[in-house]
This record gives sequence, structure tokens and C-alpha cells, in this order.
Amino acid sequence: MYVILVYDVNVRRVAKVLKVGRQYLTWIQNSVLEGELTGAQFEKLKREIASVIDESEDSVLFYVLRTEKWLEKHRLGLDKGEPEWLV
Amino acid sequence: MYVILVYDVNVRRVAKVLKVGRQYLTWIQNSVLEGELTGAQFEKLKREIASVIDESEDSVLFYVLRTEKWLEKHRLGLDKGEPEWLV
Repeated sequence: MYVILVYDVNVRRVAKVLKVGRQYLTWIQNSVLEGELTGAQFEKLKREIASVIDESEDSVLFYVLRTEKWLEKHRLGLDKGEPEWLV
Repeated sequence: MYVILVYDVNVRRVAKVLKVGRQYLTWIQNSVLEGELTGAQFEKLKREIASVIDESEDSVLFYVLRTEKWLEKHRLGLDKGEPEWLV
């Protein structure tokens, strides 16, 4: 499955969410990560994110697609993401 | 087509980007909007966003799918989006 993670969390927890997210996904731009995961990895990622956020204050959204082929990407402005060779 | 817009722009231009984005899409959470558009609307949205950002400093990403049916959404924490009746 292909997963896009978008987070909106208190600044005190941004580093924690990023650290967990980067273990599974590629950083794309501020507050956005994406990547290919197995179902088991996705469940693990959700559990780990849930353990570092405050659900009464933070919001983390996962967009999930069967395949990345269904997704077209268009960018305006800078490409802030990690270079391919870092993925 | 179904469009997810994620922006990472200088704070001086956030209000402008949001104002344009909201004319076409629904605000979901900080820096994220989404919605159903025609191809013509999408082209217009991209032109309008391009006219308010600084492409040397800002980054705006559009994820485009043929249909929203291909998209599963999972949320952890708060639902910060606009209530349905505001859409």
C-alpha cells in the first residue's frame, strides 16, 4: 500500500512524530511524508504515532492507496524533499 | 479528479494561499486542503496558487487521483476540518 502522512501536532511533539515517521516513510516537505508500506508496517506506524501524540490536541492524517500508480503528483515551487539517493 | 493540496510556504503568504485554496477545496487540517475538481478548475487553481507564492522559497504539492474512491483516510487525534455543512 502507498501511504501519505500529514501531521499537525504541537511543536513540542513534532520531532517525535518526525522520528517515527522517517523510520517508515520518506520526508517530502514540512509536515508530509510518504512511502510504500506493507499492511503490517502501516499498523505498526499508526500504533507508534499514537503513542507519541496527544490525541486531544494533535491531528495526524493518513491517506492510503492500493498503489502509487493511482497517484499523480504536481509541484509548484521548491522541491524540499530528500534526494532520491537518501530514500 | 480528486485533489489533495499540501502547502509549505512562508508565513507571510499562508493567508493568500489559503484564500485561493478555499475557493476550490475544503480545509482539512493545517496546510492541507482537498476536494473534487474538474480538470479546468485544477488548472485554474494551479495558476492562481503560482501567482501568490514565491517559487524560490515556497513549496506547494498537489496529489491527484482519478477518483476519491481510490483513497482511504485514517486519522489519529483531532478532526480539525470544517464541518460537513460548511463544505
